Amino acid sequence: MNKIITISREFGSGGREVGKRLADNLGFAYYDAEIITEIANKTGLTEEYIRGIAENGMISYSFQFAKSFASYSAWHNSQTQVLIEQTKVLKEIAQKGNCIIVGRGADWILREYEPMNIFVYADIESKINRCREKAMEDEQLSDKELKHKILHIDKVRKKYYNLISPLEWGERNNYHLCLNTSNLDIKGVIPGLVTYIENWYRSR
Amino acid sequence: MNKIITISREFGSGGREVGKRLADNLGFAYYDAEIITEIANKTGLTEEYIRGIAENGMISYSFQFAKSFASYSAWHNSQTQVLIEQTKVLKEIAQKGNCIIVGRGADWILREYEPMNIFVYADIESKINRCREKAMEDEQLSDKELKHKILHIDKVRKKYYNLISPLEWGERNNYHLCLNTSNLDIKGVIPGLVTYIENWYRSR
Repeated sequence: MNKIITISREFGSGGREVGKRLADNLGFAYYDAEIITEIANKTGLTEEYIRGIAENGMISYSFQFAKSFASYSAWHNSQTQVLIEQTKVLKEIAQKGNCIIVGRGADWILREYEPMNIFVYADIESKINRCREKAMEDEQLSDKELKHKILHIDKVRKKYYNLISPLEWGERNNYHLCLNTSNLDIKGVIPGLVTYIENWYRSR
Repeated sequence: MNKIITISREFGSGGREVGKRLADNLGFAYYDAEIITEIANKTGLTEEYIRGIAENGMISYSFQFAKSFASYSAWHNSQTQVLIEQTKVLKEIAQKGNCIIVGRGADWILREYEPMNIFVYADIESKINRCREKAMEDEQLSDKELKHKILHIDKVRKKYYNLISPLEWGERNNYHLCLNTSNLDIKGVIPGLVTYIENWYRSR
């Protein structure tokens, strides 16, 4: 069976960096934005819309603002379509070879492939600092606004995860390893993580 | 500053084994039962009584069953005495040299020494199996009884931690690493853990 590692992560915790560096070091394929592109190709919906389902809270649809039941219905159908295509895309990826998948609830969707599930988190100060270092678009935000954005995105991720799985996002029992990246130079801990993952696969 | 690693753990998760093996591999001192002995020596209370404070729920004292206020008062004083001596003993240990400390809320008590805090957990089936393999005294218990015992001990650990700290026991943000030992041969993942810990100390 292929080795699948899923990375779930708090926004700003550096989970994507963990995933990319692990993939480079382990020689595994890496999937993150590629999944969105693939779903867009299959559904004809825009990448922006698909990304929005997990990141911008588009899951919640308010009847209050709906112009008609037809508009709600169209919205509901496209959401369902994305979730169905996403499951297909993830399963295709899992069958291709060893890989690391960031986000999208892959830990739950691919459970039959027995992935190793890692959760990456950090304290709010570290997450604010990491966002400041990376994101040009957040340059204008105050610390308070950035904190609000970070917490909001995680809230939506949790909601998205609740939509597709019966488990609770971030609850330790759903993961094989939970990694706190507060004040940590991620690059520096990759060798230890790689060895741990190799050990883990041999110790089950 | 000495390197202090604290291990908090769910009962039956193999946290003690993780701690012992890490200490052997890192060449650190290991403290677990030694702390109890030291507190007993300093307070004149029995080791059994001291162990009971964290493990058997002796923290909760019911007035309903108290014979007198004097008996409550004596109980309260000895509890306080244990907590004070425990703090002293832990700080002495922290000042001696690099070490690994299992349990006793050392992560909170020694926070000024900036320990690396690890939480070890597992699913209930793995914990039942681990208890069965190790403990002679649990041989008579049914799975249901053993499960009840495991959950009860963790409940008391949580309560004890609440008594001495403002944090929540097992909440991921209080730990630098949370380790799921379900279905895992602990010995096999020690090299990865050792490398991760060495990396971690160099990456802050």
